[in-house]
Amino acid sequence: MPHNQNKARIYLGIDPGTHRVGYGVIKEENNKFSLIEYGVIEQKENKYNFHYLPFIYKKIGLLIKKTKPDEVAIEKLFFAKNQKTAMSVAEARGVILLAAAEKLITIREFTPNIVKQSISGYGAADKKAIAKIVSFILGLKNFYPIDDASDALAIAITAALIKER
Amino acid sequence: MPHNQNKARIYLGIDPGTHRVGYGVIKEENNKFSLIEYGVIEQKENKYNFHYLPFIYKKIGLLIKKTKPDEVAIEKLFFAKNQKTAMSVAEARGVILLAAAEKLITIREFTPNIVKQSISGYGAADKKAIAKIVSFILGLKNFYPIDDASDALAIAITAALIKER
Repeated sequence: MPHNQNKARIYLGIDPGTHRVGYGVIKEENNKFSLIEYGVIEQKENKYNFHYLPFIYKKIGLLIKKTKPDEVAIEKLFFAKNQKTAMSVAEARGVILLAAAEKLITIREFTPNIVKQSISGYGAADKKAIAKIVSFILGLKNFYPIDDASDALAIAITAALIKER
Repeated sequence: MPHNQNKARIYLGIDPGTHRVGYGVIKEENNKFSLIEYGVIEQKENKYNFHYLPFIYKKIGLLIKKTKPDEVAIEKLFFAKNQKTAMSVAEARGVILLAAAEKLITIREFTPNIVKQSISGYGAADKKAIAKIVSFILGLKNFYPIDDASDALAIAITAALIKER
């Protein structure tokens, strides 16, 4: 679907996790990007993953209500490394997706490689390089968000760069 | 925590899935079991897993409101076979766990092997055998729930048999 280039679009990017969920909200207008909000939903570590879910769901819901994104972009998971962690993150992804799906917001998922590729032109760029490019794209100086938030902003920018077809 | 044997306890068992989520609610009183409700939350198959999540969340929430379980018991996942399916089921598990955690209900997770072992004394019992034993334990005749609901009832019975310590 081609977008009207004059209309501003808001993107909420999410780097899913359990006790740490990164988020970043950006605005795109006439191919120019600006930062709206970013942060990390952080909770005390708990043995049981389900303890994290109500707070994540509530915070994402509030963030959507406040920033009214046209689209939610979330990192796609792979089960390469730790399967137990992967399952917990997938459960957290479930409640994040729920918050967006309930509001009927467009949801797209991007792999870490696609995000790195679209931001830096290089699929293996490290987190520091990504943070630098994110700051540059958003026109910010001396901007050093922590990794989770920087990754979330990179995901939001990726969604803005790779338009829906 | 020891339970007062004279007090009835309600268990909601859940067999998580994507377009099919089995549930079964039982009552235990003086070591006797009875069936309260069972069924399957079924949806038309969809390419995108997140489409299933709002309905699952809503239905589980309504079921909890209606049957007021003392405990929610849910099948624990392993990532042996299909990783893409496993991730989708874990996302669905996330919204099921959310619905229970929001109401501060005790949540316990059981592996399929533990369920089979505790119901039949045999970790490799097939679905037909499990359904038969479930019917017997619940004192029902000519009771043939479909697999997902039968598994969910088996999980609820397991939670009642394996008391919290």
